[in-house]
Amino acid sequence: MAHNVVLITGAGGFLGGQLARALASDTHTAPAVRLILVDVVEPKAPQNVEAVTIKADLTDPTQADGLFDTKFGVPDTVYCLHGIMSRGSEDNFDFGVKVNIDSVRTVLDAARHAGQRSGTVIKFIFTSSLAVYGGPLPPVATQDTIATPQSAYGMAKLVDEIFINEYTRRGFVDGRILRLPTIVVRPGAPSAAASSFVSALEAVAGADAVARIWFEDDETNRRVVSSWPARFDNSYALSLGFVADEGGMVPIVKRFKEQLLAGEV
Amino acid sequence: MAHNVVLITGAGGFLGGQLARALASDTHTAPAVRLILVDVVEPKAPQNVEAVTIKADLTDPTQADGLFDTKFGVPDTVYCLHGIMSRGSEDNFDFGVKVNIDSVRTVLDAARHAGQRSGTVIKFIFTSSLAVYGGPLPPVATQDTIATPQSAYGMAKLVDEIFINEYTRRGFVDGRILRLPTIVVRPGAPSAAASSFVSALEAVAGADAVARIWFEDDETNRRVVSSWPARFDNSYALSLGFVADEGGMVPIVKRFKEQLLAGEV
Repeated sequence: MAHNVVLITGAGGFLGGQLARALASDTHTAPAVRLILVDVVEPKAPQNVEAVTIKADLTDPTQADGLFDTKFGVPDTVYCLHGIMSRGSEDNFDFGVKVNIDSVRTVLDAARHAGQRSGTVIKFIFTSSLAVYGGPLPPVATQDTIATPQSAYGMAKLVDEIFINEYTRRGFVDGRILRLPTIVVRPGAPSAAASSFVSALEAVAGADAVARIWFEDDETNRRVVSSWPARFDNSYALSLGFVADEGGMVPIVKRFKEQLLAGEV
Repeated sequence: MAHNVVLITGAGGFLGGQLARALASDTHTAPAVRLILVDVVEPKAPQNVEAVTIKADLTDPTQADGLFDTKFGVPDTVYCLHGIMSRGSEDNFDFGVKVNIDSVRTVLDAARHAGQRSGTVIKFIFTSSLAVYGGPLPPVATQDTIATPQSAYGMAKLVDEIFINEYTRRGFVDGRILRLPTIVVRPGAPSAAASSFVSALEAVAGADAVARIWFEDDETNRRVVSSWPARFDNSYALSLGFVADEGGMVPIVKRFKEQLLAGEV
C-alpha cells in the first residue's frame, strides 16, 4: 500500500496538533498516512497512526536535513507550522527573525535538497498571516492589496512567502501559502500571541468563565493588532474549496469546548 | 570642521564609483565629506577627498563590523550598493541569495549595532530595482502596485526592502529605498546584468559602434526582462526633489561618452 508521508513542523503547537489529529482520523487520509512530527519539545503522536516524533532545533541545517531521512523516507508533503507568535517576535526581534525566517529557510532548503535527491518536488505548505498587512488599507483587503507589515511577525511571514514563491517558481518545492486570519488563543500555558476572542465565551461557557478574564490595555498589542485589516475578499479561497465557518464565534467556541471535554486539545 | 562620513558598499561598481566621484566633487558635499569605500576588490578612491579603501567579504559579520570602526569613526550614512546583478543571481541562486540578501542583512545589522554603540541612528540608503515587480501588472506601476518578483534578483531586492522597512520602523537605522528603473550596462569586462540600451548609440557614437554589436536571443533573459514593468508613476519621486532625465537615451549616452573621454568611468 502506498503511504503518504507528511512532515509537520510545530507539531506540538495548537495548529500542528490539530492537523496531526485530523490527518490521523480523516477517512480520506488516515488509512495511508505516516506522520513525522517535529517541535522544540518532542510532540505527542495521535492514536491509530504510524508516526515518528522528533525534538529538533530547526535553525540547525543538520537537524533540519534529518527530518527528511527518517525510517519513513522522504516526506511528500511538509506542513511548515512552527514559529514564534506575534507579540513574542515583536519583543525578541533577533530570536523572532532566527525562528520565523531563518529556520523556515533552513527547512525549505532541506525540502529542496531532499526532493532533488529523491527526484520529487515536495509539497511545502506554509501558514502565513493577516499580519503581513498594515498601514493605510482599503476597506476590504483583496489579493491585490499591497502588504506593508507593521510588526516583526508580519515582516517575517512576508519574507517567508517571498522565499516560498521563489522556490516554487524555480521548481525547488511545490509551495502553497495560506494567510490565516487569526488564531484564537488556546488553553494551556500563556502564549505570546496577540489575538484573543471572548465575545462568544459567555454564550458557551457562562458568566463564571467570563468573570475569570481581566482587561489590560497594552500599547504594543494595541498598535500591532490595530494595524491588521478587518475585512477580506475570500472569494479566491472559496473557489479553491475552502469552507467558511458560519455563525460567528459561538459555534467555534462550542466545538472547542466539545474537543476539550473529549480530551482532544 | 564637522565631517560627513559616508560608507559606500559596492564602491568598485558602476553606481558606487559614480557616487563616490559625485560626493567628492559636488560643492555641497565635497568640503566636509570623508569616504569609506568597500568592495570585494579594493576600490579606487576619487581625487581630492579623504578616503579609506577596503577589500571585504560582506557576508562575514566581523568584516562588516570593521567598516564601522575605521579611523573616520562611525559613518553617519551608508550607501548599500553591492550585489550580484540580475542574470548572475538567476544563474547562481544560492550565491545570489548569500550576496543579495544575507550580506545586506549583515551590513544592516552592523549599521544598527554601530548606531546603538554611538547613540546615533545611521542613514541607510539602498538601491532596489524595478525587478521587484512581475507577473500581471497594471498599465502604469504605482506606489500601490503589489510586488511579485519573477527573478531571484527581484526576490532578493524585495526581501531587502522588507528588512530595511522593519529596521527603520523599529528605529535601528534610518532607511531610504530607491527602486532604480534599470542601469545601462557600462563598459569594461562583461557583467551579468540583464539590461542594455543600444538605441541611442548610433546617434552618439556612429554606425561603427553599432556594427560591433550582435544580437542573440536568450530565453532566460527574455523571460526575466519581459516580467518588468514598462511604465511608472514617478510623481512621488519628483515630489521628493528627484529630477527626471529629459530627451530619452541620447543625452545620457552623450554624457557617458564625455565622462569616458575624460577618464572618469
